[in-house]
Amino acid sequence: MSISMYQASVPVFVRQLSALSSILEKAAAHAAAQGTDPATYGQLRLAPDMLPLTSQVFIAADTAKGCAARLAGVEAPAFPDTEVTLAELQARIAKTLDYLKTLAPAQIDGSEAREVVLKLRSGDRHFTGIDYLLSFALPNFFFHVTTAYDLLRHQGVPLGKLDYLGAR
Amino acid sequence: MSISMYQASVPVFVRQLSALSSILEKAAAHAAAQGTDPATYGQLRLAPDMLPLTSQVFIAADTAKGCAARLAGVEAPAFPDTEVTLAELQARIAKTLDYLKTLAPAQIDGSEAREVVLKLRSGDRHFTGIDYLLSFALPNFFFHVTTAYDLLRHQGVPLGKLDYLGAR
Repeated sequence: MSISMYQASVPVFVRQLSALSSILEKAAAHAAAQGTDPATYGQLRLAPDMLPLTSQVFIAADTAKGCAARLAGVEAPAFPDTEVTLAELQARIAKTLDYLKTLAPAQIDGSEAREVVLKLRSGDRHFTGIDYLLSFALPNFFFHVTTAYDLLRHQGVPLGKLDYLGAR
Repeated sequence: MSISMYQASVPVFVRQLSALSSILEKAAAHAAAQGTDPATYGQLRLAPDMLPLTSQVFIAADTAKGCAARLAGVEAPAFPDTEVTLAELQARIAKTLDYLKTLAPAQIDGSEAREVVLKLRSGDRHFTGIDYLLSFALPNFFFHVTTAYDLLRHQGVPLGKLDYLGAR
C-alpha cells in the first residue's frame, strides 16, 4: 500500500476548493450584512505589493487545474481572469471543480516520474511528477487558499479553522 | 510506483519548516533595521481573535511533529510553548527538525491504514493514516506556515514566494 498520485492531488484540490467556495459565500453574507459592496472584497490585500483576493483565488484554482492536467499529461483549458465579484469567483471555482472531475485516477496514477516542465519568469524548471506535486504544487495551492482565508479574516469575516478544513 | 507515506510527510515538513526558519531570520533582520524589538513581532495577529505569530509557529511545528509521530506509532516528545523571540522560535523549529530526522522511512511507510485518533475539543476524531495526512495534517500544517508568512508580509517584512517555497 501507498498513496497514489491521484489520491494526493485531485481529491485534495476538490476538498480544499470546495471549502474556499464556502468561505467566499460567508464573505458575501458578511459584506451584505455590513452594507459593503462585495466586489470591494475582491481587491483586499494584506500588503500593498501582495496580490488581491481575486488573484489568490485565480492562482489557487489554476494551480489545482494545471497540476492535475500536467500530471495527466493533458492540456488544461485556459480560464481568463475576468472575475470580479465574490459570486463570480465562486463560479470560477465551480468550473475548476468541474474540470478536475473529468480527470480519471488512471490518467494521473503512474505520473511519479513523468517530466513536468514549468515555464517560470526565472526560466524553465524541470521536475519529476512526484517532486512537482509535493514540493511545488501542493505548497503553492495551500498558500493561496490560506492567504484568501487570511485576507477575509483580516477584513472581519467570521471564519474558523473548520471553514478552512472543509467537510470531510 | 507511488508515493510513500514517508515521502508525503517528513521531507515536506522538513523543507517547509526550514523555509519558515529562514523567513523568521528575515523578519529579525527587518525588525533590527527598523529599530523594532523583534519580540513584538511574535505578538502580531491578523485579526483580534486570531492566534499570534508565536502560536502559528508552535502549531506548524507541532503539527509536523505530531503527524510524523502518529504515523510512526510512537509518542512525540512534548515541547512546551515558552518561546517568545524570533530567535527562540527558530530554535523551536530547529529542535522539531532534529526530532523529525530521528524518524526512519521504515517507521512511517505502511501507515496508510493505521488508525489515528485525535483528541479534539469537539471529541475524538478517528482517521486512517492516509486520510489524516492528506485531509487534516498537511492542510493544517500549510495553513499555519502560510499564516506566519502572511503576518510578516502584512507587517512589511520583505518576503517573496521563493522564501515560502524554500530551497529545493
